Amino acid sequence: MAARAGIVVTGTEVLTGRVQDRNGPWLSDRLRELGVDLAHITICGDRPEDMEAQLRFLAAQGVDLIVTSGGLGPTADDLTTQVVAGFAGRPLFLDSDLERQIADILRSLVKRWPDLDFDAVRTANRKQAMVPEGAQVISPAGTAPGLVVPPRNGSGPTVVVLPGPPRELHAMWETVTQAEEFRAAIVRRTTYEQRMLRLFGIPESEIAETLRVAERELGDLSGLEITTCLRRGEVELVTRYEPEAAERYEHLAALIAERHRSTLFSADGSSVDDQVSRLLHGRRLALAESCTGGLMAARFTEVEGSSAYFLGGAVTYANAAKIEALGVRAELIERHGAVSPEVAEAMADGALARMDADTALSITGIAGPGGGTEAKPVGYVCWCAKLDDGSKLARDVRLPGDRTEVRDRSTTVGMHLLRHLLRGEEPPRG
Amino acid sequence: MAARAGIVVTGTEVLTGRVQDRNGPWLSDRLRELGVDLAHITICGDRPEDMEAQLRFLAAQGVDLIVTSGGLGPTADDLTTQVVAGFAGRPLFLDSDLERQIADILRSLVKRWPDLDFDAVRTANRKQAMVPEGAQVISPAGTAPGLVVPPRNGSGPTVVVLPGPPRELHAMWETVTQAEEFRAAIVRRTTYEQRMLRLFGIPESEIAETLRVAERELGDLSGLEITTCLRRGEVELVTRYEPEAAERYEHLAALIAERHRSTLFSADGSSVDDQVSRLLHGRRLALAESCTGGLMAARFTEVEGSSAYFLGGAVTYANAAKIEALGVRAELIERHGAVSPEVAEAMADGALARMDADTALSITGIAGPGGGTEAKPVGYVCWCAKLDDGSKLARDVRLPGDRTEVRDRSTTVGMHLLRHLLRGEEPPRG
Repeated sequence: MAARAGIVVTGTEVLTGRVQDRNGPWLSDRLRELGVDLAHITICGDRPEDMEAQLRFLAAQGVDLIVTSGGLGPTADDLTTQVVAGFAGRPLFLDSDLERQIADILRSLVKRWPDLDFDAVRTANRKQAMVPEGAQVISPAGTAPGLVVPPRNGSGPTVVVLPGPPRELHAMWETVTQAEEFRAAIVRRTTYEQRMLRLFGIPESEIAETLRVAERELGDLSGLEITTCLRRGEVELVTRYEPEAAERYEHLAALIAERHRSTLFSADGSSVDDQVSRLLHGRRLALAESCTGGLMAARFTEVEGSSAYFLGGAVTYANAAKIEALGVRAELIERHGAVSPEVAEAMADGALARMDADTALSITGIAGPGGGTEAKPVGYVCWCAKLDDGSKLARDVRLPGDRTEVRDRSTTVGMHLLRHLLRGEEPPRG
Repeated sequence: MAARAGIVVTGTEVLTGRVQDRNGPWLSDRLRELGVDLAHITICGDRPEDMEAQLRFLAAQGVDLIVTSGGLGPTADDLTTQVVAGFAGRPLFLDSDLERQIADILRSLVKRWPDLDFDAVRTANRKQAMVPEGAQVISPAGTAPGLVVPPRNGSGPTVVVLPGPPRELHAMWETVTQAEEFRAAIVRRTTYEQRMLRLFGIPESEIAETLRVAERELGDLSGLEITTCLRRGEVELVTRYEPEAAERYEHLAALIAERHRSTLFSADGSSVDDQVSRLLHGRRLALAESCTGGLMAARFTEVEGSSAYFLGGAVTYANAAKIEALGVRAELIERHGAVSPEVAEAMADGALARMDADTALSITGIAGPGGGTEAKPVGYVCWCAKLDDGSKLARDVRLPGDRTEVRDRSTTVGMHLLRHLLRGEEPPRG
């Protein structure tokens, strides 16, 4: 059996939804890579009694490791170290080496803020040098140190304490994994395989049916922990298994590939973004977008190294911008409307011509909440992917959801359309 | 004392970080509006024993209400109803009215997927019509119904069961709040006030110092639950209090306004995006962006109604695009580099001229991980906000963080720069 872990995310800003937690998912991935089985993530505000209750809950669940994030800042609502010290039964003391280290860091920070009262800053940060007895200190990446706190009598979980800012937490993780007490806590680890299949253009219930067929036809699926989920318009099917179930997984994967040939686009977990990025190497891409308002360009440029093929994009919200920046003819807009297959193609043509591109993708649609008509309701979107040799794929459908969902989903459909065009395929219906 | 609640988010895809949870934060806001005090959010995978442990934990913490999201789909890994029925001690039965209702919904869905085996779909979804005895059914917004499950002997929490897709959960919430058992569970509610101050261009430790000064100068701050957090480069200070502490809060807010006059930009919780959006009414905005690759345009167009002032933007990643789409002179790029205050201003000028705008914002920088030099390291970004009367504000600084953070933070700095320009102010240093 693998070592089990829990994650405790603290911060009223996270609990109340003002800030989206990015640490739970990131830590979850790191633990999986180490073969540790994550059982629970819990989120609490800046109330010590709630955090302590969560630590005790996880200990009662028999986890070997708890990782906390947040609550290490200079303000009085940052209480994690104190709570963990109490939980582990290890009194706090002032670590004067650490205090000097933090003071040095602050001195260099203070240069950026010349009007600051330095003594006030140091007092504020002195509390960050308080450490539970017997804990290992992980040097700060910002100003807050991390901790690896072993259980007092050798029983109970080891607690890893990390700061909330993702960059600091990421920078400190490598050191955590080297810590002796951390390695001791996860010694029970097992190696799991995890594989992901991704499908586009298929309802989740079809996958459910395929899984029932698999049980009938392949017999024993035990040892395969299968989860499916809908994400940004795609179905993801993730299977986790111990090495001895590998052959069973291969049979399952083959059955799915056979039944869903036209919609299964990734058998190795690669995203459509990765795939399109590879297909674009050696090409020159230009975008023309309206309702997505820059999201499509932002999605392409999220990929490191995208500057090798991404020339640029025109975000043409106003009709005048479509005419001006892309050379769409005014009478075309007048005749068919700004949201029409005709204008979508003219936008793609404009992107090809104006940016000296060989590959173009255009999107125009009605994201809502206003602007819909009976013929063209909110959610109606038109795409055109086109190459400089004249080949193209076009689509227009009505997407479900609110403004944010329509905009986001539009980028996914655009990405898949471009993938099919670059692979020289017809896209599936649906 | 207010009623207390917990939220249980289920789904291996959420626990393992493949999907970011949006329901916890949304439910958290709705509960606060109802005066319910949220104590814990817990996340578990699709393992019934982990979910049951979380329900028991929350019950042991004395919460009056538990809201679950997810685990109501047609696949075998969707187990929430079964687990909640076990937890509440209420056996499941097949609700045949509900079964018919779901069948009707499916029939219309199936029209979109003409190749589907309808019987297979209905079998897959029949499990969604199983209901715990004594529970109130909330009609589906998709295909999964919600539930309000009261405690069996009048003691213990009421459990509200909702589906995972945010749109369905949102659509069903209003009906939940009308349910008698729901209202009975939250009857102990208190009205809380919550107020937010936002600051930009100030380190969090300065706020910590101000809060210590407030304690010395104003005396009693009890009854004010104050949390601060850093978010996208801004400091947010949120205070939650019962109505009798209102005067104490006003004194605190006045002290902060006095000490941080130049960096406090929002005393009413409004975001910089809201404020800039208001300042832009009656204007014509055009953008020119490079390293942010469309994120700045996407941020402006996230606001409903932004088409009233947002004309469009040029995402000019390649130098050729800067020259072509914005008329930046090639020799300017050669002399100063594509990332320079000079090119930033030329990009803003190009956006004004080419899109017939009266307001422009440009961003060019090195998002990384490659492309940095000693003189212009990764994170170095230049902005220029300019009006057609020639007035402008420009900035260039080195931002901390990785590619994603540099891109995101660049949009925040750009938004604040434009705010200062439109208000006719000089921005603070820092």
